[in-house]
Amino acid sequence: MKLIRFGEINNEKPGIIIHEKYYDVSLFGEDYDEHFFETDGLSRLKKFIDLNGDELPEVKNLRLSHPVSRPSKIICIGLNYADHAKETKANIPTEPIIFFKSTTALCGPYDDVIIPKNSLKTDWEVELALVIGKKASYVDESKASEYIAGYSLHNDLSERAFQLERNGQWVKGKSCDTFAPLGPFLATCDEIPDVNNLRLWLTVSGTKMQESNTRNFIFKIPFLISYISQFMTLLPGDIISTGTPAGVGLGMNPPVYLKAGDVIELGIDGLGSSKQNVKVYAN
Amino acid sequence: MKLIRFGEINNEKPGIIIHEKYYDVSLFGEDYDEHFFETDGLSRLKKFIDLNGDELPEVKNLRLSHPVSRPSKIICIGLNYADHAKETKANIPTEPIIFFKSTTALCGPYDDVIIPKNSLKTDWEVELALVIGKKASYVDESKASEYIAGYSLHNDLSERAFQLERNGQWVKGKSCDTFAPLGPFLATCDEIPDVNNLRLWLTVSGTKMQESNTRNFIFKIPFLISYISQFMTLLPGDIISTGTPAGVGLGMNPPVYLKAGDVIELGIDGLGSSKQNVKVYAN
Repeated sequence: MKLIRFGEINNEKPGIIIHEKYYDVSLFGEDYDEHFFETDGLSRLKKFIDLNGDELPEVKNLRLSHPVSRPSKIICIGLNYADHAKETKANIPTEPIIFFKSTTALCGPYDDVIIPKNSLKTDWEVELALVIGKKASYVDESKASEYIAGYSLHNDLSERAFQLERNGQWVKGKSCDTFAPLGPFLATCDEIPDVNNLRLWLTVSGTKMQESNTRNFIFKIPFLISYISQFMTLLPGDIISTGTPAGVGLGMNPPVYLKAGDVIELGIDGLGSSKQNVKVYAN
Repeated sequence: MKLIRFGEINNEKPGIIIHEKYYDVSLFGEDYDEHFFETDGLSRLKKFIDLNGDELPEVKNLRLSHPVSRPSKIICIGLNYADHAKETKANIPTEPIIFFKSTTALCGPYDDVIIPKNSLKTDWEVELALVIGKKASYVDESKASEYIAGYSLHNDLSERAFQLERNGQWVKGKSCDTFAPLGPFLATCDEIPDVNNLRLWLTVSGTKMQESNTRNFIFKIPFLISYISQFMTLLPGDIISTGTPAGVGLGMNPPVYLKAGDVIELGIDGLGSSKQNVKVYAN
């Protein structure tokens, strides 16, 4: 299944993509949130669609939102592709670097990205994100795949001065509003036969900036889930973003950052593509 | 008002303390969560209590839980007392260090603290926490106080090896289950005449470890709210923990960490006290 959420900001409805058409599943009566995933919502949704698929209202000209509602946290992995570690002059990590992104950074895959006030170094990062399907604590690596609800495309936007030049801890540069465009959809695991062989790419205003493949992960997903679950409990709906490959603005010589009018496009095999127009904060 | 949440884990009810007695306000019909604070719940709750105060059921022998339900995030301030910066051999920060704690770390003020698997360096930190009352983005320091719903006592437990010796970013050492005992209650602002003159203290098994006063903050609360709101949007119910004074285990010579059987007690003037028995993870 490919799950979407659509509609006005803060008034989103659940939907589904079937044969590239978008359908409203409001009648199912639940948003795609912690409770949905915790109570085996994916199985229940599948049954609902099997029963009602022919009668679901099609939706056109919709605003897509991020496909998971109010996760308890977004956990990101730093430097999980060797080429990206090299371009940022960081050592290849001996164990995963993890950091949080405020969930208020989430936005839809075609929403505008807003360069925050006082920002000079807003940067892009195409990433594969996974969504946790059930509560996970001290999970064994061999069983970690059972805890995945699905996958989604994520642009882990980052303000490099806020992240690296404002007195420690990356969270400052990762949490601005619109810094987490997620989607277009959440693909359940059965849609992605081999998560370790997916091409991912990103362009800025038509110029290819990032192109790699998830086969280049330093730490693979089951290890990441097991590892993170040694330090904290993962809840259903939580998002883990698995790191970005080479080609970010910080890694250019000289560095190149986003400016108003830029258009970011990104995609991952099987997870669709997204597109954000870049604007500056105005108020 | 002094707001409490009480009852079994994951089945808590809202309550209130009046003249040191505990009352059930389930009839009010809302938990103390983002929606409650966002919709001026404190004013509505006050009216409800003014109308129904005489008929509220008293509760005895209750388990207290953390007084805010599922905040979108917990933001902590690092090194906000000069004496604590000195004991950890850190420079006095020129601007606030901020980091996140997973909200799954929250527990009640009298719950057991569980030393996580593979931990050798679990440490204590008494802190004043504030709860955000309304959505805050790019808030001016002069208006920041309007965004506070109230204050609470927080033990910002920290695993120092996870935090400092496991490849960067403090979140690993701050997010274990039971690492955020919060409460006993949330005091609304009117209960705390001067938040910059509150004694705070912590003992471990009867030995005084921390004793200071919030007058020693390096960065005061209105500045902190304004500062954080430049990097991310704060939502109603979000928790900001304002840092700990000297006297943590990491700062001892040699360092001293928690062990099974220890009892932590802590308190802040006007915000009550809490007590946690320390156990090791067992499963």
